[in-house]
This record gives sequence, structure tokens and C-alpha cells, in this order.
Amino acid sequence: MYPEIALLNYQRSALRWDAWGTQGTDFAYPELLPAIVKMVQREIGAGHLLSLRELDLDEIKLPASRLPSSDLQLLLRITGKEGIRTDRQERVLHSCGQSYYDVIRLKTNSLREFVDAVVYPENESQIVKIIQLAAQKNWAVIPFGGGTSVVGGVEALRKKQKAILSLDLMRLNQIIDISTEDHLVRAQAGIYGPELEKVLQEKGFTVSHFPQSFEYSTLGGWIAARGSGQQSGKYGKIEDMVYSARIVTPAGIFESDAVPAASTGPDLRSLLIGSEGALGVITEATLRIHPLPQTRSYRAFLFPRFEDGVAALQAATRAGWPQTAMLRLSDPEESRMLGLLSRLRHSQTATGRIKQKVQDILLAMKSLSEHVILIVGLEGAERDVAFTARKMKHLARAHGGMDAGTSAGNSWLRGRFNLPYLRNHLIPAGIGVDTFETAVAYSRLRELRENVYQTFPSVCKHGRIMSHLSHTYPDGVCIYFTIFFALENDTLKQWHRIKDAVSAAVIRSGGNISHHHGIGVDHKSFFKKSNPTAYKWITDFKAALDPAGIMNPGKLVD
Amino acid sequence: MYPEIALLNYQRSALRWDAWGTQGTDFAYPELLPAIVKMVQREIGAGHLLSLRELDLDEIKLPASRLPSSDLQLLLRITGKEGIRTDRQERVLHSCGQSYYDVIRLKTNSLREFVDAVVYPENESQIVKIIQLAAQKNWAVIPFGGGTSVVGGVEALRKKQKAILSLDLMRLNQIIDISTEDHLVRAQAGIYGPELEKVLQEKGFTVSHFPQSFEYSTLGGWIAARGSGQQSGKYGKIEDMVYSARIVTPAGIFESDAVPAASTGPDLRSLLIGSEGALGVITEATLRIHPLPQTRSYRAFLFPRFEDGVAALQAATRAGWPQTAMLRLSDPEESRMLGLLSRLRHSQTATGRIKQKVQDILLAMKSLSEHVILIVGLEGAERDVAFTARKMKHLARAHGGMDAGTSAGNSWLRGRFNLPYLRNHLIPAGIGVDTFETAVAYSRLRELRENVYQTFPSVCKHGRIMSHLSHTYPDGVCIYFTIFFALENDTLKQWHRIKDAVSAAVIRSGGNISHHHGIGVDHKSFFKKSNPTAYKWITDFKAALDPAGIMNPGKLVD
Repeated sequence: MYPEIALLNYQRSALRWDAWGTQGTDFAYPELLPAIVKMVQREIGAGHLLSLRELDLDEIKLPASRLPSSDLQLLLRITGKEGIRTDRQERVLHSCGQSYYDVIRLKTNSLREFVDAVVYPENESQIVKIIQLAAQKNWAVIPFGGGTSVVGGVEALRKKQKAILSLDLMRLNQIIDISTEDHLVRAQAGIYGPELEKVLQEKGFTVSHFPQSFEYSTLGGWIAARGSGQQSGKYGKIEDMVYSARIVTPAGIFESDAVPAASTGPDLRSLLIGSEGALGVITEATLRIHPLPQTRSYRAFLFPRFEDGVAALQAATRAGWPQTAMLRLSDPEESRMLGLLSRLRHSQTATGRIKQKVQDILLAMKSLSEHVILIVGLEGAERDVAFTARKMKHLARAHGGMDAGTSAGNSWLRGRFNLPYLRNHLIPAGIGVDTFETAVAYSRLRELRENVYQTFPSVCKHGRIMSHLSHTYPDGVCIYFTIFFALENDTLKQWHRIKDAVSAAVIRSGGNISHHHGIGVDHKSFFKKSNPTAYKWITDFKAALDPAGIMNPGKLVD
Repeated sequence: MYPEIALLNYQRSALRWDAWGTQGTDFAYPELLPAIVKMVQREIGAGHLLSLRELDLDEIKLPASRLPSSDLQLLLRITGKEGIRTDRQERVLHSCGQSYYDVIRLKTNSLREFVDAVVYPENESQIVKIIQLAAQKNWAVIPFGGGTSVVGGVEALRKKQKAILSLDLMRLNQIIDISTEDHLVRAQAGIYGPELEKVLQEKGFTVSHFPQSFEYSTLGGWIAARGSGQQSGKYGKIEDMVYSARIVTPAGIFESDAVPAASTGPDLRSLLIGSEGALGVITEATLRIHPLPQTRSYRAFLFPRFEDGVAALQAATRAGWPQTAMLRLSDPEESRMLGLLSRLRHSQTATGRIKQKVQDILLAMKSLSEHVILIVGLEGAERDVAFTARKMKHLARAHGGMDAGTSAGNSWLRGRFNLPYLRNHLIPAGIGVDTFETAVAYSRLRELRENVYQTFPSVCKHGRIMSHLSHTYPDGVCIYFTIFFALENDTLKQWHRIKDAVSAAVIRSGGNISHHHGIGVDHKSFFKKSNPTAYKWITDFKAALDPAGIMNPGKLVD
């Protein structure tokens, strides 16, 4: 398996309820943490930082379960005893996702709604029965894959429902079939990313869907959230990977036709992708697989100006070389921040300090002391990758770029799933960190970025914003913003103020509210405002498939 | 513009009401027609052929329009006088499409329903008013683009409606915007293929959606039918080309978000693609465009056996070379038929006869007297095409294939839109000709083809079946069947017998009922049987968007 991927402990008892990851996993450079916190503090211009007291799980204000034991008995008859949990750890863990807003609500003890029980069905027929029972009893049902939603996708919410069930798909984690002839894999929805890749890579294949949440997210979650992996340039977004999918809705089971392409009316498969648990529970899917690439080459190029990097990225995307797995361009702010981080790492050792010195001199000589960094990921047969790498170097040079070798790229690859752990250490130190992302046509990219960069400081005094482009298309690009800021006393209000302002700036600049994070609760109002008819249509479809409105109420649409 | 494309006369008075094409266009080799008819007659083993008497338009049993002049006045107030037609030619022309079943119904005077009037709105707001009036008056509305549906997509049908309007989009034929920065074109739905390509190609761009109907089909029709062009290998199926689309439904106007990609819930754009006029009228769309390729190279390879050709086609598809626009593999039956046709052409001249002789000797020497033919279409920069051509030759050789040069490929390219004219001459001579197509995973291709080949002779005594693979995918392929048969006295019954049997064989072998022709009327029952839940879902969505059921009733779903 790719060396940067690890099979983790997915037992619910091992997952951390108030932070990213499982017990025993952490940020890869713990020795740098104090210096990083100090650096960010300097960057955001905050003289003093709030510090958040760590809460014990026992301190969480958890109301008693609304499910009487008679109801639990009914569920138990479906799933067996091992399929029902109502203890504190399980209920808290399943009551929100992994957004910044989720974490600060937990850390400030301000989460108001909790799931009343967690059910762990073993198979699809148990899911059908659970949904039937929930419809009859008027319970909300929240499908739960890896629980890594950053938009409130698994948040405990109910409308008029009497109770809330979290339906955890963890036990549906089997690979059903691998067709090496058709290049397809069929698996159950609850399988984790590394579990799926392990089996496939041992057979010489890969799906290569690598969202940053990859280690903690599941097949069903990828589809429900309409996510995207870092290598979408070669392997596509999740909607390009899904060959067919199966969903249990309150109105019945649906499975899309398992064919390579169709003109049998509207594509219903694409209704499942992005359904966010609001139409039903995705139980199985067939994904396209690819022979494991013989080699992966991740190489950095430095450009003097952001515009040059954008032009190179656009030209490389349009060239359509089949080896291009990723084009990731950090803007000047993010490039500078990456430079500071790398400087911190180098400062730890004597050789590192020398390396840094040499690098500084070289960059100054090339007038690239200020630069933007483009990481180009190529995957495929050795010969093809080498050939495309030559073409890429030529293209970069034509746009004023300098080949900076493979070390930044390899370091990115190694650390690709590690960055979220940093948040675990920043928030307690009083530093908020959040991200938001959108897709936009090339012609409006500049305007969008400028509008967001003007908006953020107007709603956040002590903060820093940076961005990168990833997931590139012939017609446009995904731009992904990261913000750091000093926590205010009312952290929740602060978050809403920032979120509202930047989201509005994105929408009015021709972006959409999400390229790959989804709608959930957090993006619902912006989605509704930006395309009221789309919102209305989805509401209509939900009414047809979930007439009682029990499936993940309050997510996607109201 | 590409030399094989011609801007034709799209005036409705120029279109032939009972045959393919406009007045003055025809099959490219009229001198060969008698020999072709004789050859096909021999092939299908029919001693005697029925001959169909040509009907005059005046003979068609056309009932009086159900629309009283007061109603026509109401329409006239919306569209103006030039926007309403009720004369015989217009009503007959708009009452069916271009399927074999349509043509024989016209030729045997057995079409039963006709549209009562044809409206030609000038803009979207007129379309909104027409639909409102139709809902109020309970009229069926059938959107009409180029009218080339081969599945009954524009057939005059009504359920409980009092009258039928054909809504012809011919006057909405403007290009709204070309963005050379974003590589996008926005146009009105009624624009014809050649009209769109002409403007784009003059600016150095192309959409390259080339279905066989290209010369007579429109942007809106391509999207409504979820069609596919011959160069889908490079440019995608229509669903890959649509950046955003706009539709007028009885419940209001919807436009999908104009962004490169999204995770804002289910993809509603893909509900419009394949909506077949049953959800509303597509009025505008934005398509992706590509720089016009510097060169197009269409080259044939011969393989001893079909399996070798399939293996080569599969490997070439999976290689993912960005220049591969088309991989088209004729099976032994079709390859033999193409050989006979080419022999006929060669027999016309002395040099042709010599050429044929040389070719026969060469093929015999290579043990390829019996062979299958693969046409590989490469498009792109000269250098890249040459490079990929070398790779392709290598790949073909590795599968036992022989490079047969560019003459067959060029001849295919020249004649790509011409074959449908042949039908105009076969049917009157007593020879039925129809096509059907499906998508299937590689692992079931052999079974599907064998089942269809066993089924056809069991329902058609004097007939011939052949097929080719086109529209290739990493996981499967589109297989396209052509059948020729001696007309029986009851031609309609004969067609239903054949259609039912082959469709059932396709479905039970893992294919779907259509890869790119659509559902319309003809495929509705098979679609329903093959995926009843899909059928039900679309019915539900239609109920939400078209509650009165006036949009193209009886198509797609009931």
C-alpha cells in the first residue's frame, strides 16, 4: 500500500470525540508545535490568545436519551444487542462531525442536540427495517459513515421528530466483488478508505480517491457528500468514479443501472451522489478502479507571480496528459506560509539550517525570494511519467516557472493526511482555523479571490487568509481558502460572522457554496439563496422519496 | 469548417416529411443504389421483395386540427402570425421523428395521431406563455428541435389532453456568448449542429459533438436525448459537454449552476440531460469547447478475430491517450458487409478493380481475407497525433492487428453523415433497416452479442444482423446493431416482433435499453421493466415539475 496510508483503529472507542483522529495518532512534528503556535500568533497579529480549557467527556451536558427501553427493545430485535449503543461516548461522538464549528461547540459545551441512540446494522435488510420503524415511530435517522463532515452533515438535528437515531454503517464494510476484467470494485458503503485501498493495492489496483479525510472517511460518505480526492485530475471527482450505487430510501430501495453510460432518461445515479443522507442510506456502490501506477512523481515549480502559476496550471490542465493526477498551486500568502513552516523544520538541525541558507541564496539569485509554488503530481508508467514530466517542465519554463525538484512534492505526499491534526493543537491555544472552498470559472477567479481577501479582514481583526487552487478543470478551478484567527470570547458568534461574510463574497463572485465539502447544515441558507429553484427541486424530490421527512432532517434542504 | 460538414437548408418547407434529409440532399453514390439493393436482397435471402408505393403528402389521413380559431388567436397573440402553422406539411412533419417505425407508419399511412398546430416561439418568454396557456387549456406540448429522434421522442401523443402542440425551437438559434478564456459557448437550444460548429470553427474552436444526426439535430435535442457523438472518446458524451443548462418547466424556470464542478447536493444539471421534453423545454445551454485540433488522423487496423479487436480497443481506451477521439470496431458481419460495399464501389472503375485485386491478394497473404476492422480516430497537435499513432500501431500489432492505412478512415470520415440517406432508397425497395444500441460492461459483451445474434433470426426469417463497438469506456463499451430485413406485409407488426425480442435479449444480457438514442415511446416499457424504481422516480419528479402532465406526454414515462 502507498506508504503514506495507514490502516487505523476504527473502533468507535478509539476515535477522539472532540478532536481529529484516533487515540495514538497525531501531528507528525510534535516538537515544532510551540514554534508553530508562536508563528501563527505573530502572523495573526494577536498580542494575547484565549486559552480553551480541555473538557472531560463527563462534563458534556448530555440529556437523557428520549428513547424508552420499550423502543430500544424494538431496535434490538432488528440489530441484536451488539447493534445498539446509548452510552455517553457513542452519543457524543455521533452528534456532530469534524468541522471547526463542531469542535468549538464541543469544546465550549454548547452543543444542544444529541442523538438518542446509535444503531449499527449488520446488513441492508436491517437498514430497511430500521427505517421502517423510524418512519412509524417518527424518529430522525442520520446515516453516519466516518463522521468527518465539515458542513454539519451528521449533526444531531430533528424537525418534528420525537427522537434521533444515528445509523452507523461501520459493520457494512465488505468488499463484494473486484472485477479485474471490467476494472470495477463493488463494496459496502461503510468501508473505510484505507481498508478499500489495501485490498485493491494488493491486487495491483487502486480507486485513488484521496480526500484529506481519506483515513477516516468511508465509501458511502464520499458519495453522499459528493467529495473529491486530491488526485481528481487523473481519477476524477467521486461522481466520475461511481459506476453504480444503491440506496435505501423510506420509499424503497433503488439501484442505478450498472452500465458504462446511458441515455435512459435523467441520470439518477447522480441524484444519489450528493444526497447527504437526506434521501436515504447509501448501502453499496461500484467504483471504477485503475491499475496501480508504476510510479508517482510529485514535483514543485516556483513562479514569480500568482498569475503565471495560474496560466501554467490552466495550460497543463487543458493539455490533458493522462498522467496528471494533481496540479496544486498555492497563492503568494499560502506559499509564504509554507515557506515559514519549512524554515521552522529546517531550523531544527544543523544540516537543515545549511539547506535553508543555500535555498535562500538560490531563490534570491533567481529573483524568486517571493514566489508561488505549484505541485505537479504525475502518476503512471515510468516512461510515460518521464515523458510528461519533460513536457511539464517545458510548459512551466514557458510561463516563467522554475523546476524546484521533488522534495517539496514528496513532503506534501507524505504529509497529505496529517495537516488536520494541527488543528487539535491550535484551537486549545486560542487559534481558530477553518477552511472553505468553491469552484469558479477561470474568468472570475481573480475577482473571487480578491473579493474574499477584502471581505475576511473586514469581519476578522486578528486573522490571516491564504488559498490554493486544486481540482483543476478545462473551464475553471477549485479555490480552497484556509483562515487562521484569534479566538474571540464568543467563538460561535465569531464563526457565524466570518462564515456569512466570506460565503456571501464567494457567491456574489460567481463561485458556488461548495466544490467538494457539501451542503449539510452550514451551507443550506447560502445554497438556497444562490439557486432557489435547485433548492426547491431537491425539496420536491426529498418529499417523494422521504415523505415523512425522517432522513437526516435539516441537512441539504429543510 | 470540417469539409464533411455542410450548412443545410433548415427551413421546414425544405425538410422531407417521409424520409431523411432536405430536398436536394441524398446518398453520395446514387449510381451504386441498384447494385446495393441487389446485394442486400441476396444477403437477406429473400427471393422476392415487397415494394412500397410512394405516398403523396395529400394522401396522409390527416384529421382536422382540434384547435378552434379562438384558441389559435390566443397563441397568435403570444408568437405573432409567423409563429403559428397549421398547414398539412407542417403538421405531418412535426407528428413523428426519424425512426424506421416512424417512416413505415408514414409510408403505410398508419400514423394515427397528429399535432394540431406548430408554434415557433421567438424567445424564452414566449415559451413560458405558451406553456402557461397549454396548462390552462390542457394541451400537450411536444418540444421539437431537429425532429431526428429514432425512439418516438417527438411523436404526436396525448393522454387526456384536448389537443397537441408541437413547440418548434427553430427560431431560438442564436449563439449568446463564446468565452475563449473559459473555453465555453452559450447558445440557444434551437441552433443546429453545423450552425454552431461553423461559428466556433471560424474562431478556432469546436464542440465536436457529432452524432450521426449532426446535420439535422440541435443543441437542445442533443441534451434532451442524452446523446453521444462519434468522437466521444476525446470530447465526451453530451453529459460531459454540458457546463450548464436552462429549462422552462410548467413549475418554473430552472438553470443549473454555472461552475466547473460542485458538491451542492445531487447534480440537477444531469436531470435536464435526458429529460426528453417530458420535464420542460430546454432553452439555452453552455457547452465546453476545445481548440480546433491541428490535425485529424483516421486510420484502420485489421485483426484476424473479433476478440483481438476488442482486446486492442479495450487496451487503447484504458491507455487514455488524449488524442483518441474514436475507436470503432466492426464485428465480422459488419466488416464483411463493409468489404462488399467497398467492392461494389471499386467495381465501377478500371483502377478500382485493380486496387481491389491487389487488396485481395495482400489480405490473403496476411491470412486476413476474413477480418474485423478497427478505425482509430486521433485528433490534436500534429506531433502528439504522430506520437500516439506510433503507440497505437504498436498496441495493434501486439494484438495481432495490421495497419491498413488511412484510406478506410478517411472514407468513413467523409461519409459519416451520409449513411442514413441509404434508408430512403432501401425501404421503398422492400428492405427494412433499423438500428439499436446499448452499453455493456466488457465482461458481458460476448454474451450480449451472442444472445442478440441468436434472437434476431428467430424473429426474422429473411434478415441480416451486424454490429460495431463505439463509444468505448474503461469499463465497457457501446455496441450498436444494424439489421436489414425483407419487409413483410404487416410491417408494423413485424417491427414490434423484432424490437421486442432483441430488446429483451439486450436487457437480459446486462445491457441497458439505450446508450445514446434515448427512451421516447419505443423504449418506455423496456426501461420500466429493467429498472422499475428508476421509472417510478422519474415519474415522481415529472409530477413535481409538470403536475398537469402536459409536457411531451407518453414519452420517457407514462
